[in-house]
Amino acid sequence: MTTVHHPFTPPSISIPHYVPSQHTMLEILVPFFTAVLLVLVVGTMLISNKMINLTTSSFWTKSLFLWFTMCGFIHTGVEGYFAYHYKTIAGQTTFMADLWKEYALSDSRYMTADPFVYLMENITAFGWGPLSFLTAYFIYTNNPTRHVFQFLISLGQLYGDVLYYTTTLAEDGGHCNPHPYYFYFYFVFMNAFWIVIPSLVLISSGKEMASALVIKQKMEQKKKSL
Amino acid sequence: MTTVHHPFTPPSISIPHYVPSQHTMLEILVPFFTAVLLVLVVGTMLISNKMINLTTSSFWTKSLFLWFTMCGFIHTGVEGYFAYHYKTIAGQTTFMADLWKEYALSDSRYMTADPFVYLMENITAFGWGPLSFLTAYFIYTNNPTRHVFQFLISLGQLYGDVLYYTTTLAEDGGHCNPHPYYFYFYFVFMNAFWIVIPSLVLISSGKEMASALVIKQKMEQKKKSL
Repeated sequence: MTTVHHPFTPPSISIPHYVPSQHTMLEILVPFFTAVLLVLVVGTMLISNKMINLTTSSFWTKSLFLWFTMCGFIHTGVEGYFAYHYKTIAGQTTFMADLWKEYALSDSRYMTADPFVYLMENITAFGWGPLSFLTAYFIYTNNPTRHVFQFLISLGQLYGDVLYYTTTLAEDGGHCNPHPYYFYFYFVFMNAFWIVIPSLVLISSGKEMASALVIKQKMEQKKKSL
Repeated sequence: MTTVHHPFTPPSISIPHYVPSQHTMLEILVPFFTAVLLVLVVGTMLISNKMINLTTSSFWTKSLFLWFTMCGFIHTGVEGYFAYHYKTIAGQTTFMADLWKEYALSDSRYMTADPFVYLMENITAFGWGPLSFLTAYFIYTNNPTRHVFQFLISLGQLYGDVLYYTTTLAEDGGHCNPHPYYFYFYFVFMNAFWIVIPSLVLISSGKEMASALVIKQKMEQKKKSL
């Protein structure tokens, strides 16, 4: 038996089909963060030019339009690639596979087809991904039922992310690279967005739905008493 | 090294602190299902005698009152015991520990402190459990915001249960007893309640919230146009 050397943590895990990345760290990070910025900047410009004519003037709602558009791209595009290729990704050399190899330096479960990780990613990619685009569309059309979808997606993202973090803690972070750059920037920081923002959306849409339900009940009671 | 013999699947897993159950299967199942029936029968009687005076006449809403009360007891009481004792439960001989040993005959992850399983059970026990009692109380007080909580709990239950089933499939059911009684009755059937009922609640409360949001938006547009 020959051992395949790989850069993931811990070194003892077996990734027999591993092929080294064909991209340097910068060749991965620059295109990725450029794409993220592009969506945000172009989106903001299109909204302020009224090329994308959002009926709302609320900064929060405009931000949510960008957020769910971004989630749609990341969930379906980036996580979708992993969810579809998780078994073979360590042996691939496409840009997307190398992007995941770069991320997996912080969490090797992405290279070992860890069941919890790939199932959570499948639900995120094929569930929350398309629903995120739908929600962005509902914000665009000023459809009030968007709050139900915002609440649904956000709870799904939050629950998935909480389990993602806590399974790591439970396993004493054995599959995490202890180097601060990988641990704090990739693992902690990049995932923290899906703790903080979904929590805010849950509170905001939860309140909106609660107040709508109170109004509906009052109207029904009024009708009955007539 | 001495091997501790245990009845769980696969026999090769190590549960060094295992102590055999002090209760027969019937001594576990009879009290458990009696307690479940008691909650349902006594609850139904109290509702129809108006000792618990639900303002609704809807069969569905009355059923939800019983469902969330039952979820409150099972999540906090039964799953709460596991969530609190998962590390030592295989070595305990209390009724609750033996109940979990009986269930674990179908899924040994409950005896091996599997991280996904105990984290999901912790979220269920300490999150969805108390919220289930709160929701039952909100149904009792006819508080319309109960739909937000029903939706939240049901999505949490559904996501947890989907991951519970699919992680098993992903691991080829290696920790599941293949005997039909354990596999179909304990593992498939007993957990299926938390797939079917939460799905129905999500649709029903989702629709209710959507229609309330539409009403609220119409009222706001009316006000603006005055």
